[in-house]
Amino acid sequence: MEPKVIFHIDEMQKWRVLLNNVANLLMSYDGLSPDAKIEVLANSEAVKGYLPDHIADDLRAMDALVQKGVRFVACQNALNGMKISREQIVPFADVVPAGVRELADRQMAGYAYIKP
Amino acid sequence: MEPKVIFHIDEMQKWRVLLNNVANLLMSYDGLSPDAKIEVLANSEAVKGYLPDHIADDLRAMDALVQKGVRFVACQNALNGMKISREQIVPFADVVPAGVRELADRQMAGYAYIKP
Amino acid sequence: MEPKVIFHIDEMQKWRVLLNNVANLLMSYDGLSPDAKIEVLANSEAVKGYLPDHIADDLRAMDALVQKGVRFVACQNALNGMKISREQIVPFADVVPAGVRELADRQMAGYAYIKP
Repeated sequence: MEPKVIFHIDEMQKWRVLLNNVANLLMSYDGLSPDAKIEVLANSEAVKGYLPDHIADDLRAMDALVQKGVRFVACQNALNGMKISREQIVPFADVVPAGVRELADRQMAGYAYIKP
Repeated sequence: MEPKVIFHIDEMQKWRVLLNNVANLLMSYDGLSPDAKIEVLANSEAVKGYLPDHIADDLRAMDALVQKGVRFVACQNALNGMKISREQIVPFADVVPAGVRELADRQMAGYAYIKP
Repeated sequence: MEPKVIFHIDEMQKWRVLLNNVANLLMSYDGLSPDAKIEVLANSEAVKGYLPDHIADDLRAMDALVQKGVRFVACQNALNGMKISREQIVPFADVVPAGVRELADRQMAGYAYIKP
């Protein structure tokens, strides 16, 4: 069965562990199949991780994961709450109206849920 | 597919984020269908959030969510551990013998799991 | 349906709550069926919980759970990151190459996920 996993992050301090987790998951598959789906959903304060002034190492790690097919997503409700506009965040991040809805829908569609 | 989601909380400090998450999820469905099931399961110290002396804003938020069909549940093991009786907590909260069993059973029944 | 649950721990400070959670889950089943599967997956810093100098009460609790069929697992990536060898950790803990892969695979195989 092709891997389908959604990672959930809602605290800024968890970005480092989360990005390591995603990299380790990818490595375990030894190259993703085209059907594989790995997504990172950030809501609450964690959406600030998508600002370009976030820790450079983390942004580089995100970029490398994007190249390998990982999808990064921000919650619009959280962006609103933090007064961050879509234009302010890194261009590779997608935005969904409600992060929790995304978490629910993905699991309903067979994704595993991992909260570092 | 009708939404079925169980939220898990075991730390007092997470109540605000959790209640916002649940409200955002509800809003995303734009009115729950009668088949929708959204549940909040509190165990460990988080059951203290059901005491009437808990932050008034949170209690009001819970009440509003109950009106919209959200079910709030407390773990009996946790209540015992905190020396809280069923009579002391808000009447709208249901009690289950073991919170972790509820989390397991719901997921086995197709619920998505979200831990803010 | 026989219970299949994977617990996830990645912070040292969560061991006490996690072990109580697992004990409560077991108690709720009133004796596990032979088909039941309960697993604890530790990654990140939480793998240090498998060192023999970890809190004695926790080690005793783990041992009691192992006797009842619970499987304890450590992430090899995390052990490497903490410079801990397989020989240093308690013998009852299994090691998997990537903890997140284990979390994903188990959920794909129908396990419920609980993160205390």
